[in-house]
Amino acid sequence: MPVSEFDIIQQVFKSRAQSDNQVICGIGDDAAVIEVPTGQQLLVSTDTLVSGVHYFPDANAFDVGFKSLAVNLSDMAAMAAKPCWMTLALTLPEANQNWLNSFADGLFTLARKYQVALVGGNLAQGPLSITITIMGTVPAGTALLRSGGCVGDDIYVTGELGMASLALASLKGECRISSNMQQSLLERLYRPQPRVETGMQIRNLASACIDLSDGLASDLLHILQASSAGAEVNLPTIPITASLKALNEQHRWSLALCGGDDYELCFTAPVANRTVLERMSGQFGCNITRIGKVTTGAGIRWLDENGLVKPVPDSGYRHF
Amino acid sequence: MPVSEFDIIQQVFKSRAQSDNQVICGIGDDAAVIEVPTGQQLLVSTDTLVSGVHYFPDANAFDVGFKSLAVNLSDMAAMAAKPCWMTLALTLPEANQNWLNSFADGLFTLARKYQVALVGGNLAQGPLSITITIMGTVPAGTALLRSGGCVGDDIYVTGELGMASLALASLKGECRISSNMQQSLLERLYRPQPRVETGMQIRNLASACIDLSDGLASDLLHILQASSAGAEVNLPTIPITASLKALNEQHRWSLALCGGDDYELCFTAPVANRTVLERMSGQFGCNITRIGKVTTGAGIRWLDENGLVKPVPDSGYRHF
Repeated sequence: MPVSEFDIIQQVFKSRAQSDNQVICGIGDDAAVIEVPTGQQLLVSTDTLVSGVHYFPDANAFDVGFKSLAVNLSDMAAMAAKPCWMTLALTLPEANQNWLNSFADGLFTLARKYQVALVGGNLAQGPLSITITIMGTVPAGTALLRSGGCVGDDIYVTGELGMASLALASLKGECRISSNMQQSLLERLYRPQPRVETGMQIRNLASACIDLSDGLASDLLHILQASSAGAEVNLPTIPITASLKALNEQHRWSLALCGGDDYELCFTAPVANRTVLERMSGQFGCNITRIGKVTTGAGIRWLDENGLVKPVPDSGYRHF
Repeated sequence: MPVSEFDIIQQVFKSRAQSDNQVICGIGDDAAVIEVPTGQQLLVSTDTLVSGVHYFPDANAFDVGFKSLAVNLSDMAAMAAKPCWMTLALTLPEANQNWLNSFADGLFTLARKYQVALVGGNLAQGPLSITITIMGTVPAGTALLRSGGCVGDDIYVTGELGMASLALASLKGECRISSNMQQSLLERLYRPQPRVETGMQIRNLASACIDLSDGLASDLLHILQASSAGAEVNLPTIPITASLKALNEQHRWSLALCGGDDYELCFTAPVANRTVLERMSGQFGCNITRIGKVTTGAGIRWLDENGLVKPVPDSGYRHF
């Protein structure tokens, strides 16, 4: 039975969309009408996932839906924002109802968790591609920008780095992982957990923040460039899983620092906030680990256990 | 020379992006930070253009950039909104600098005209696809929804209908157009002029509004369904160009009512506003034509010059 885009929007998406009393008019008009609460600033970010680039062409539809929103929520987390609304631009080769329902289940699992309302979107026929625009709010003036890092600030990361890239390396046969371990690694690759609660929690404690999508080496550099500063990072303090520690150093740091797809947060904070941040670690199921400090100069000096500068790979994923 | 996505964002887009004092933080962080003025509601809409579906794969890059924004601005016009900000998600097979510069020239021609600030986006490698999310504002409570039409209201359209679909038909060899005429028709197909000024001007005069992307037959029906009403439309009053009048009736109405890509506005308004709306016609280079009225019942009755119901094609473009 042929199914129109209007049927899909109604049956697959509108039926799952939650209401929100700031949404004056949601799905189904030429644009959504939203009431941004007084005193709040609007945060906006857009991310696209392309089949064959960001996930395997045969990827599980639930995972694709989940990850499409996760990467966008991660951008809200990095700004210390409360995610609120999203639009979905979905381009599909064909209207496969099973695929669409699983995709929507994955997407709305996260949307419900964070109470993000789907307010509009676009459905078109073409090569599979998913673009979500997410909108959130912060009290005016409290968004965490990349440019707020100060010389002397501590540098932190959430969770463990390199899990997703280790999973990918294992799928490619580049390293061996116990099948037990592989399951939890694949979970990290396919269903990254955006650090939304942590982002909001560090809003008034951190000075700058970014989410790790391209890898620490490349993403921390964005903070440093925006903050006109350099950094020293102590390699032994970087939180990595035992399976990564088992690899040789070059492979280990290549995955942990440059592999991408971590969707953890990297942030800087004044030394004065160290105690309260350390007390927060472990909340919301995610540790916070201090890994270095902001310095004068430019670039990152990676230090080994003896405090000696160590050369490590330093490039993130490049699309072109 | 390989060029990274960061170079493209900097050289092609950031260099052309305008500033806006409501944009606290624009391109280059994890999200944009925007100050929505007090008393204004936020309008959000997303549209995707896919190569081979919305334009020919060999289409001129300037036109692709222009039309990508035009279709989004048209959604803001349909809500009576002032367009303000946008994000751009661009997926490209390769980073061709010439193509990118022409695309950006087309996009920013319209962005500058309507002072729309590019505040963020995403650049990825993959099949060519362009998704713009546009944001605008209206004074709280004044957005024109589809649901506001009332029985007795007049129905209007802006401009002339069927120009773009006539251009397309002529390109496909389905009808013959003088080469002189074809140029101005192609202009309508490739560079539609969104009715932004008209949309804002009718904000307090119209009761419901939609932009014509799928064709009047299908789009007016959206207003009627949302407003729980029917309509009578007088075919002889529908503004169409001489080249369309020259076609046989079936072909003429198929193009004018179902062809799509008009990006004109269709709106309803109380009879009391007729005089002031007729006085506005011709302003901003676009006529406003009264074509019928909202009635009880459901669906559209198309009437010929004798007031007799006439069967006309009634389906818009379907993606699936």
